[in-house]
Amino acid sequence: MPNLNTFIHYDFLLTNAFASRLYHQYAAELPVIDYHGHLSPAAIADNTMFPTLTSVWLAGDHYKWRAMRALGIHERYITGTATDEEKFNQWAGAIPYTIRNPLFHWSHLELKRYFGIDQLLTSETASGIYRAANSLLGQPEYSTQGLLKKMKVEFIGTTDDPVDNLTHHARIATHPGNIKVAPSFRPDQIYFINRPSFRSYLEKLETTVGFTIRTWTQLLDAVDARISFFHDHGCRIADHGLESLPAEIHSESPEHAFTRRLAGEVLHPLEESTYQFHLLKHLCTRYFEKGWVQQFHLGALRNNSSRMTATLGPDTGFDSIGDFSQAKHLSHFLDALDRKDQLAKTILYNLNPSWNEVFATMAGNFNDGSVKGKIQYGAAWWFLDQKDGIEKQLNTLSNFGLLSTFVGMLTDSRSFLSFPRHEYFRRVLCNLLGQEVAAGVLPSDEAWLGKIVSDVCYYNAKAYFNL
Amino acid sequence: MPNLNTFIHYDFLLTNAFASRLYHQYAAELPVIDYHGHLSPAAIADNTMFPTLTSVWLAGDHYKWRAMRALGIHERYITGTATDEEKFNQWAGAIPYTIRNPLFHWSHLELKRYFGIDQLLTSETASGIYRAANSLLGQPEYSTQGLLKKMKVEFIGTTDDPVDNLTHHARIATHPGNIKVAPSFRPDQIYFINRPSFRSYLEKLETTVGFTIRTWTQLLDAVDARISFFHDHGCRIADHGLESLPAEIHSESPEHAFTRRLAGEVLHPLEESTYQFHLLKHLCTRYFEKGWVQQFHLGALRNNSSRMTATLGPDTGFDSIGDFSQAKHLSHFLDALDRKDQLAKTILYNLNPSWNEVFATMAGNFNDGSVKGKIQYGAAWWFLDQKDGIEKQLNTLSNFGLLSTFVGMLTDSRSFLSFPRHEYFRRVLCNLLGQEVAAGVLPSDEAWLGKIVSDVCYYNAKAYFNL
Amino acid sequence: MPNLNTFIHYDFLLTNAFASRLYHQYAAELPVIDYHGHLSPAAIADNTMFPTLTSVWLAGDHYKWRAMRALGIHERYITGTATDEEKFNQWAGAIPYTIRNPLFHWSHLELKRYFGIDQLLTSETASGIYRAANSLLGQPEYSTQGLLKKMKVEFIGTTDDPVDNLTHHARIATHPGNIKVAPSFRPDQIYFINRPSFRSYLEKLETTVGFTIRTWTQLLDAVDARISFFHDHGCRIADHGLESLPAEIHSESPEHAFTRRLAGEVLHPLEESTYQFHLLKHLCTRYFEKGWVQQFHLGALRNNSSRMTATLGPDTGFDSIGDFSQAKHLSHFLDALDRKDQLAKTILYNLNPSWNEVFATMAGNFNDGSVKGKIQYGAAWWFLDQKDGIEKQLNTLSNFGLLSTFVGMLTDSRSFLSFPRHEYFRRVLCNLLGQEVAAGVLPSDEAWLGKIVSDVCYYNAKAYFNL
Repeated sequence: MPNLNTFIHYDFLLTNAFASRLYHQYAAELPVIDYHGHLSPAAIADNTMFPTLTSVWLAGDHYKWRAMRALGIHERYITGTATDEEKFNQWAGAIPYTIRNPLFHWSHLELKRYFGIDQLLTSETASGIYRAANSLLGQPEYSTQGLLKKMKVEFIGTTDDPVDNLTHHARIATHPGNIKVAPSFRPDQIYFINRPSFRSYLEKLETTVGFTIRTWTQLLDAVDARISFFHDHGCRIADHGLESLPAEIHSESPEHAFTRRLAGEVLHPLEESTYQFHLLKHLCTRYFEKGWVQQFHLGALRNNSSRMTATLGPDTGFDSIGDFSQAKHLSHFLDALDRKDQLAKTILYNLNPSWNEVFATMAGNFNDGSVKGKIQYGAAWWFLDQKDGIEKQLNTLSNFGLLSTFVGMLTDSRSFLSFPRHEYFRRVLCNLLGQEVAAGVLPSDEAWLGKIVSDVCYYNAKAYFNL
Repeated sequence: MPNLNTFIHYDFLLTNAFASRLYHQYAAELPVIDYHGHLSPAAIADNTMFPTLTSVWLAGDHYKWRAMRALGIHERYITGTATDEEKFNQWAGAIPYTIRNPLFHWSHLELKRYFGIDQLLTSETASGIYRAANSLLGQPEYSTQGLLKKMKVEFIGTTDDPVDNLTHHARIATHPGNIKVAPSFRPDQIYFINRPSFRSYLEKLETTVGFTIRTWTQLLDAVDARISFFHDHGCRIADHGLESLPAEIHSESPEHAFTRRLAGEVLHPLEESTYQFHLLKHLCTRYFEKGWVQQFHLGALRNNSSRMTATLGPDTGFDSIGDFSQAKHLSHFLDALDRKDQLAKTILYNLNPSWNEVFATMAGNFNDGSVKGKIQYGAAWWFLDQKDGIEKQLNTLSNFGLLSTFVGMLTDSRSFLSFPRHEYFRRVLCNLLGQEVAAGVLPSDEAWLGKIVSDVCYYNAKAYFNL
Repeated sequence: MPNLNTFIHYDFLLTNAFASRLYHQYAAELPVIDYHGHLSPAAIADNTMFPTLTSVWLAGDHYKWRAMRALGIHERYITGTATDEEKFNQWAGAIPYTIRNPLFHWSHLELKRYFGIDQLLTSETASGIYRAANSLLGQPEYSTQGLLKKMKVEFIGTTDDPVDNLTHHARIATHPGNIKVAPSFRPDQIYFINRPSFRSYLEKLETTVGFTIRTWTQLLDAVDARISFFHDHGCRIADHGLESLPAEIHSESPEHAFTRRLAGEVLHPLEESTYQFHLLKHLCTRYFEKGWVQQFHLGALRNNSSRMTATLGPDTGFDSIGDFSQAKHLSHFLDALDRKDQLAKTILYNLNPSWNEVFATMAGNFNDGSVKGKIQYGAAWWFLDQKDGIEKQLNTLSNFGLLSTFVGMLTDSRSFLSFPRHEYFRRVLCNLLGQEVAAGVLPSDEAWLGKIVSDVCYYNAKAYFNL
């Protein structure tokens, strides 16, 4: 394998001079607004240090786990009882076989940007890289907050449950010169009413709000109380992860459905949908009133391997891309809010790239001239967060909407080492534009294209999220 | 912004010499057959003049409206009470932000080809461009017919309701040296039986045909009468815009469904589908007997914002791309006609590019050797009518069918300024072929590829539509 | 048309020097493992000779038939009573019009590789090419086995019905120095219970196994007997061609469904699905126990033209790409096997490229670290087996899985002349990698990329199928 410096070099992914100028002059130096992700607020507040490269880089990273399983590596070296060094060595042996998968780019970009590694990771280089990185991880600037500062992170949106007391966020705010970290409201546990844990969750919610929840009205009161609490603690973003938006079923009532579920029944699909439609509509109306941004992550088919999920739990690498019907439910739900002019700023993320055009044109239906880029066709998400997926999202957005209004990239990650993905996105964006200038598809106007690049990489998000 | 002449130049979109030769020698000079669109026959017959650039360019153009709304521009400047010059200035300020959207290319191509403008449109250049264009619009060659002649338009297919008396078409035919303008038969108002306006429309149809319509048989008689009338007035093309083709439901009867609807009932979905299946099958059988071409535009999800549709009506920029099931219904419907060898020449247009391969292979199922290119996989339509969408349609058609049989581009537009889209299509086509010659994917045979280009841009349509 | 040597030259499809080196040094000389196809075992065993180019090249090739019909060529010259030379001349006149369709590349590659033809086929060159090829077909090395040897074919997987006695396979094994030809088990006739031929097929199965089949248990016994018989005759691969995987319907029982069908009833959809789910689950459990590889070809919509199918039968060019829901059924079925760790090595092929990402990520869900590349996202199939389709499959596999584990190309063909498609695939693969090295997307490491290429083109399949 050649030296990493000749691979991830100054003009990595930038295939002509125009692209290079766009990136280096208009994108590279901008701070990072990471408006949605899954970093642990506790780990940020605690300014946690990491004992090994394995602990900060492999633990919890189901993308890498999935690749290792595909290569026939035993679970012992993935989530099992092997030592950190054994696990690292297995990953090091695996990574050359991930060529063309985003893991190959991401991982080397991370090694280079955080640790200054200039070798490709292989079984041969594993030991040296492991020692070098572990040594750096012992230094104070490799704490969670240090890692974020190194990448010029200005804002972090975490993802939080309604019963969370947000004390970690409060602790973070007390650190001097700190990165701004705001919670996002993600009420999955209230929404997925048929989950076995629903009733025990409700008890937690009762404790949190301090009143009993026996009726639909009380449930909405509890929801409202938590939204207000989150708002008072700086939350301005909500997030929902669904297969598709729920349908309104006129023959059912949410009150009745909630009562039946409280009594221990499992709701049939139409009841469940009714409950979800009305709950979500209520939530979204509140988001609108508070001036929040709402996000919908649509289309994942989760926990497909019941055998592995039973052992390892959710989010361990057994999820995939669904092929649900999306358009009509999306349209009806958004229209139900828009009809009364109660549709908040909204970001629609799709997991199946076959839906790109459906989502991009759906966003366009509810732009009413009130806010620039009010309804966003969201960035390439999860499996789609790779060069090809990012290019497709940017091309769809451009052809079916307006690139210039885009709020840009986010990590959506659990990892403190994933922030070079903003650099990755910026390079991909600048390269697309540079290639089109070379092909005569875009006018050769560096200042104007540079302004669009800066807006997409930073300024649009700053304005959209009122930062 | 640079000068427009350096952007939309002689070889705009043509990235190598082979592509340039193909375009300039085999495509550029051919006349235009615009076999399907929505131009006003009255405006052609009246040889209407336009008082301002806004009136000919922005009024009625929901593509531009949608982009302006996404940029946060108030409706007053879009469809509202602002002056024509105020509206133009808002659009001029918006257009630099449409970069990478087809509006950016289309708009500048239109300014250049019709008005000889050599500047990019921005807030700075707005006033000069507005004055220059308005001045030209006062000249006789900028009448509707003049604009069509300027673009070498030879044939126009309009889109007309069955109750239309086609007097405008008759008036157009009396103009000396005129462009041929033929009506197309689009019986949406008869097909969408559950629309509130259905019964009042039937009254119009009764008046038009001169007999009462109280039974299914009478309805079919009325339909037949209007098809004959249209045929006698030069119509040879029918058009249908549907979410998907209707299913045959054996448990229901169209007679009963029609009678129930006449009595004021709203049909349930199975009844509606039965009515639509049998009506459409009857229509298509007649189209076959008359030797017409039938077109199906499938997959739009319309009027998604009920708030805006209530104010502005349909076709105002609130439509999007649906994700309906298409394949089985398409297959069954076409087979129902083909079984008796009553399938007319057919063009299948899809709005969701995820269906490209479904549509292209479906077309291939019903080619029976009787006519070259009998079943056409139609050109990139509406949202897909941009460089990427056109390329995808051409690539899908090529890989799953035969490019050489394609009847090519159409505007499908309401605008008298949209005809440079034929130039745009021709450049994209020639560039694709030129790039493949350069990559060794196509043999470097200019005469042969030039013939294919000429066929696709003009001669195939001329033969297919018997012009 | 230019000389074929300047078109299909040494670096055909290889657009830079790196791609050329990868292909010529790491792919070109490798033998061919064609693990799934539809060659006739009898024709291999008989070492059949072909009287004319038409008989080996056009007879049975529904790809060519479909193209000819689209060009308006009468069925007489396709499957009808015209002479072999008349048919060939029609095809020769058609082929220049197939430009950009894979037929244009495939056909010329076949003429060049098997017959050393160095002219493009046209009406002008038809006669000379026909005579030259016919003359060669008279030579012994143009027998079926000779044609396979010419392409360095090492292994052929045929596709065989459970009642087949596999005597042809036994005869092939007795030829000295022979290509290994193994049967694959494809029990469509047992699976599609509602086919009119089901009961007469069951009688054949009874005769074959030597016992009566009146109950579900007896049916499974018969199935098991044939799997054992196939296993004893070298079969290690099963294959299923379905619209989608069947759903488990808890309200129905397969025993009851089978009994009703035996009594002559046609099953309703839920019964049919139940029967199919339990039959397929039983089969797949046996495949797992035997250590076989199972293949699922999903998504074709077949025999769309009932008029032509009635005349010509199935597989005559009237099939297309379906848009069925796939993800949930795929997930549930694979999980039903995986839950008990009874999921065999599996290859998932999709016909609709809009499902590429659904299939690629679904494969990833069931990789458990036990086998390298255990669940394969299969090669571009049927309509997708062209440059663009192959590239998309390779890109999806790379972005959503691991290219390095891929078992690579197969012909899936009925034709003894289709084996240059392995060359075609290898060139496309090497070109993709070469282009990415040039763009800096891949590290410029010839030895490593060469190893990946060799693995994908040969060694992965050799290991996966235990050859």
